[in-house]
Amino acid sequence: MATSEIDAGVEYLRDRTALHDVLIAYAFAVDSLSDMDGLLGCFTEDAVFDLSGLNLPRYHGHAGIRGFFAQVFADMTHHAHFVTNFRVDRLEGNEAKCRAYIMGMGKARSGLEILVYVLYNLEYRRSGESWKISYFDERTLMPMPESLTAIHGRE
Amino acid sequence: MATSEIDAGVEYLRDRTALHDVLIAYAFAVDSLSDMDGLLGCFTEDAVFDLSGLNLPRYHGHAGIRGFFAQVFADMTHHAHFVTNFRVDRLEGNEAKCRAYIMGMGKARSGLEILVYVLYNLEYRRSGESWKISYFDERTLMPMPESLTAIHGRE
Amino acid sequence: MATSEIDAGVEYLRDRTALHDVLIAYAFAVDSLSDMDGLLGCFTEDAVFDLSGLNLPRYHGHAGIRGFFAQVFADMTHHAHFVTNFRVDRLEGNEAKCRAYIMGMGKARSGLEILVYVLYNLEYRRSGESWKISYFDERTLMPMPESLTAIHGRE
Repeated sequence: MATSEIDAGVEYLRDRTALHDVLIAYAFAVDSLSDMDGLLGCFTEDAVFDLSGLNLPRYHGHAGIRGFFAQVFADMTHHAHFVTNFRVDRLEGNEAKCRAYIMGMGKARSGLEILVYVLYNLEYRRSGESWKISYFDERTLMPMPESLTAIHGRE
Repeated sequence: MATSEIDAGVEYLRDRTALHDVLIAYAFAVDSLSDMDGLLGCFTEDAVFDLSGLNLPRYHGHAGIRGFFAQVFADMTHHAHFVTNFRVDRLEGNEAKCRAYIMGMGKARSGLEILVYVLYNLEYRRSGESWKISYFDERTLMPMPESLTAIHGRE
Repeated sequence: MATSEIDAGVEYLRDRTALHDVLIAYAFAVDSLSDMDGLLGCFTEDAVFDLSGLNLPRYHGHAGIRGFFAQVFADMTHHAHFVTNFRVDRLEGNEAKCRAYIMGMGKARSGLEILVYVLYNLEYRRSGESWKISYFDERTLMPMPESLTAIHGRE
């Protein structure tokens, strides 16, 4: 390979790894049920967090995302989001689009348990050295349980 | 590292990523329940798709694979294949052998639901820039549910 | 990129891949219910295998780990450990710390079935070309089923 090709190859692989790492960091933060800073650090300030595919609201920016997860963290005693099938659909310059499958589960203080199988659509922006999620939505892969809106549905 | 070692390192990592990407593309295509071209694009023209480990038939080439999935796509309303534990057992020149774990689930028009835990054995061939699956079989990791043959068993 | 930066980039990506590969090799060996050498080959001679987070014992070195898994292999007819969310928390010189999520399931000769959702905390040491796990513990992500101690609890 020419040096320029090696350069591009390494850059590409490092970017892919970084994009995946942000999503894994998101899962760990969500599942900590406490690490709000770690969670918000995965998103750009102006990120859109869109749960309309689950018949839940669309949240805007760190303030909106914080509001949603403050309630989630208060409501849940257990959370686990298993991330698989990460896929880079586009990676150009400082922008990327990726998808992933998530098996998400949790148990609420109320005793309700939830298990969902969803697809995440993710857009990222790079600023400086770090990639952050600028757009997030999810849609169902399998029929959703009734308990989802029972747990997260209130506004 | 010497330049040749860096070269080899980058090549190896790019190939691994590409091999994994083909399998993820397969999962997305299977779960789309419509993208037959995307699905067949993951396989060499002469690929063997062997489901005998599940007491189902062995299919040959694009025509055979298309026939099986045309029926699957018609039968199912939901599909999700979660791919984990991807492992490269051999990668030499234009050939590779890999394995992966899959949690596969689906819901049929008939209402039947299915959930399986299986191991994929994969052989790949590279032609030009792209890797494709030339041999595919799967075997069970956990006891199989009765519903598998009820859903996919007819010929 | 400067040559030294490319070097470091390739090295970093190769190490990450190797660290992940050891964990996947561990899962395959555990799930084989027979490959004790493959299993022990994932661990340093002095490794600590700590199941106290599951109210099970802490095992020391290859002898301790072999003892635990000899019993597991004898008890179980099926095993599957799905590894996701692999994360490198630290990678410096010949030491690394990583975490991962595991969906672990099995069926015992007794007929008991088990399904757990756990987090692995892993420390690795590199010796020569190969990374091995020097410390392993796990803790629950979701409430544990009663069957865990029924299956693995005896000493």
